[in-house]
Amino acid sequence: MKMVASDSLSRLTALHCSACGTEYSAYPLQRVSACCSLPLVADYDLREPLSRAVIDQNDTSMWRYGALLPLLNHDNKVTLGEGLTPLLRLPRLAARHELSSLLLKDEGQNPTGSFKARGLSMAVSKAKELGVDGCIIPTAGNAGVALAAYCARAGLRAVVVMPRHTPQAFQEECQWYGAEVELVDGLISDCGARVRQRNADGALLDISTLKEPYRLEGKKTMGYEIAEQLNWQLPDVLFYPAGGGTGLIGIWKAFQEMKALGWLAPDVKLPRMVAVQAENCCPLLETYLGHQPNCHAYQGRATLANGLAVPHPLGEDLMLRVLRESHGTVVSVSEEGMLDGMRDLGHQEGLFVAPEGGAVWTAARQLLATGWLHPDEQILLLNTGNGQKYMDNVAGRAWK
Amino acid sequence: MKMVASDSLSRLTALHCSACGTEYSAYPLQRVSACCSLPLVADYDLREPLSRAVIDQNDTSMWRYGALLPLLNHDNKVTLGEGLTPLLRLPRLAARHELSSLLLKDEGQNPTGSFKARGLSMAVSKAKELGVDGCIIPTAGNAGVALAAYCARAGLRAVVVMPRHTPQAFQEECQWYGAEVELVDGLISDCGARVRQRNADGALLDISTLKEPYRLEGKKTMGYEIAEQLNWQLPDVLFYPAGGGTGLIGIWKAFQEMKALGWLAPDVKLPRMVAVQAENCCPLLETYLGHQPNCHAYQGRATLANGLAVPHPLGEDLMLRVLRESHGTVVSVSEEGMLDGMRDLGHQEGLFVAPEGGAVWTAARQLLATGWLHPDEQILLLNTGNGQKYMDNVAGRAWK
Ligand SMILES: Cc1ncc(COP(=O)(O)O)c(C=O)c1O
Ligand SMILES: Cc1ncc(COP(=O)(O)O)c(C=O)c1O
Repeated sequence: MKMVASDSLSRLTALHCSACGTEYSAYPLQRVSACCSLPLVADYDLREPLSRAVIDQNDTSMWRYGALLPLLNHDNKVTLGEGLTPLLRLPRLAARHELSSLLLKDEGQNPTGSFKARGLSMAVSKAKELGVDGCIIPTAGNAGVALAAYCARAGLRAVVVMPRHTPQAFQEECQWYGAEVELVDGLISDCGARVRQRNADGALLDISTLKEPYRLEGKKTMGYEIAEQLNWQLPDVLFYPAGGGTGLIGIWKAFQEMKALGWLAPDVKLPRMVAVQAENCCPLLETYLGHQPNCHAYQGRATLANGLAVPHPLGEDLMLRVLRESHGTVVSVSEEGMLDGMRDLGHQEGLFVAPEGGAVWTAARQLLATGWLHPDEQILLLNTGNGQKYMDNVAGRAWK
Repeated sequence: MKMVASDSLSRLTALHCSACGTEYSAYPLQRVSACCSLPLVADYDLREPLSRAVIDQNDTSMWRYGALLPLLNHDNKVTLGEGLTPLLRLPRLAARHELSSLLLKDEGQNPTGSFKARGLSMAVSKAKELGVDGCIIPTAGNAGVALAAYCARAGLRAVVVMPRHTPQAFQEECQWYGAEVELVDGLISDCGARVRQRNADGALLDISTLKEPYRLEGKKTMGYEIAEQLNWQLPDVLFYPAGGGTGLIGIWKAFQEMKALGWLAPDVKLPRMVAVQAENCCPLLETYLGHQPNCHAYQGRATLANGLAVPHPLGEDLMLRVLRESHGTVVSVSEEGMLDGMRDLGHQEGLFVAPEGGAVWTAARQLLATGWLHPDEQILLLNTGNGQKYMDNVAGRAWK
């Protein structure tokens, strides 16, 4: 079933339930699957040949991959120029640690300062295409800021619900975009409960992670970019700071799509995917280690890396599948470890990263120490945000 | 005299004094001209044909214009992926004000959050190429942060001298890059005096605006990008927030270079260039209006737009020349006007800009009101930085 209008570039065909595979139409607004109440995932026609020439080289944003994105009519695109962020070599840190090849993709250079811009640009574009008037989101911070920005750009109402302990800069920036901000005592899961209560009539589209299918499609563009920037090769190991997990799941989805399309170099091996969590909140690690059947009853605590304080990720099964399929793993990093990582990247490479970005570098060092990771492997760190909005929480910590 | 090594892509030939034209070699380290103690400007061989195909389309940073940049050996490049920032349409503000075409180039998406990244990437690369051990800078904030980042990346020492009233976030970010930070009571001119005193032995390279020739070359890439992004057309009017003026001078230099190379569309008219200043510190405006012979004795005050608090710009004559040659003008904006501009861009277009960016939009509205600017002209606003590091100073002001 090919469903797209013939004048659309998009190869989108349908959605399916990530748990049982039941197919859903992508024409109406969809949330989670009716069958399993689990995430819906977008499908594209990947059998008809499609060459890499379809990438719009004049478009220096994530929208250059339009054929593999779900937007049907480009007039609905809500963009601030997100994506195609730099892939940087880290020669000084590599030399210090005798690594052959250490790379960092700097998502802090996105609009609103984090990779959340990708998911929200896509979700808000689709919300506009599907006739939504406004959106609501529970957030650890960055996603709320991005939602507020893209809704302002689209002329849609935005309601952002975040933990009261989130640094002031996140709340303030939402206000500058004209969003309504509500503060809740607790973590993002408590904000999620408040969102369901406040939006009981369903007047607003709930943009919670994986509760609508399109943020994932925005996030997956990181995977396309990594391949294109490495000339269709891939790194050996990829480090991702996992909260809800959309990036981990999205990047892996992109790799699968490119494999199906024949876009990757013939000899390419897909990377081992490493999910990095905070010691203060590591539900995925606990499940992975068999300490709990799943994350449903996990109790998390706040962390400097706000984005990792996600105690009950809806996409837990999808994340575990990526770890399994990629022969990856999951590690946790202490609060002090995040700061160490930030200092290293700042002092040695001129990058002021979010604590989440600090965490991935420290995680790599931990896995080098255990021998799971080898110094001659090509390592890619995903820095998901810049450090500026976290300043309140890390002030005075630039030196040890 | 063609001086570049034959294995270099760069067309750099020499430097000349911006006041009297005396030529200087670009091989040794140069500061201001020995003849007039005024800025040195880089020259390129523009007579030998050079097609636009020389632009490296695989390079999504400002370094894609390598042939027209002064770096001789690419191994010396110190980059964080700066440049090729989005050129965005502002449809909602345009509709509200019945404008035919309103564009904004978002320099806030650069590394370290401002357009200063361009100048400092270039200056630090050249400092590395010319064998410098460390750099020192007087700064209103953003240039210091950028210097600190690029020096960290290059493994050079960085000393940053900024006004004590600069928001804490600027000072802190420099620390994360391992720079030495000194705070001075007063404005950037007082910091400049302190830099001369502290660096009396000349051990460090003084990277003050226009006191070395290469920051300008980094800044000029904005001009190349604007032309390339508009398919070699140019806007009718360009708004630039002018402190020291490197962007204004650099963009105009790029337009002249492209004209000499035959890169611009045949029928193109160069834009009228508008310098935007703060009411609290508008030396250029006062000279332009004939209220003073030059800025030397001008008394400025601090402003929300830290980057505009430059009472004695060394490049005053060069800026006035750009205004004259382009049939441009200079306007000043109040503190409240900057906040109004920030609110408009945030609430209507999803852009959280620096006060400098707020100022250019308000300046455009002021010139629309006087009739100097026509609603059917294509208007380009240069937003030079994102708002995050200014948060302390604008907190609670998102709503009027
Ligand atoms: C900077 C940063 N990194 C990582 C994450 C985690 O992203 P995800 O929930 O998609 O796994 C977040 C989420 O808020 C974030 O803001
Ligand atoms: C955000 C911002 N805009 C504009 C300026 C002024 O730039 P220039 O001194 O090159 O005119 C500065 C300088 O500090 C700045 O930080």
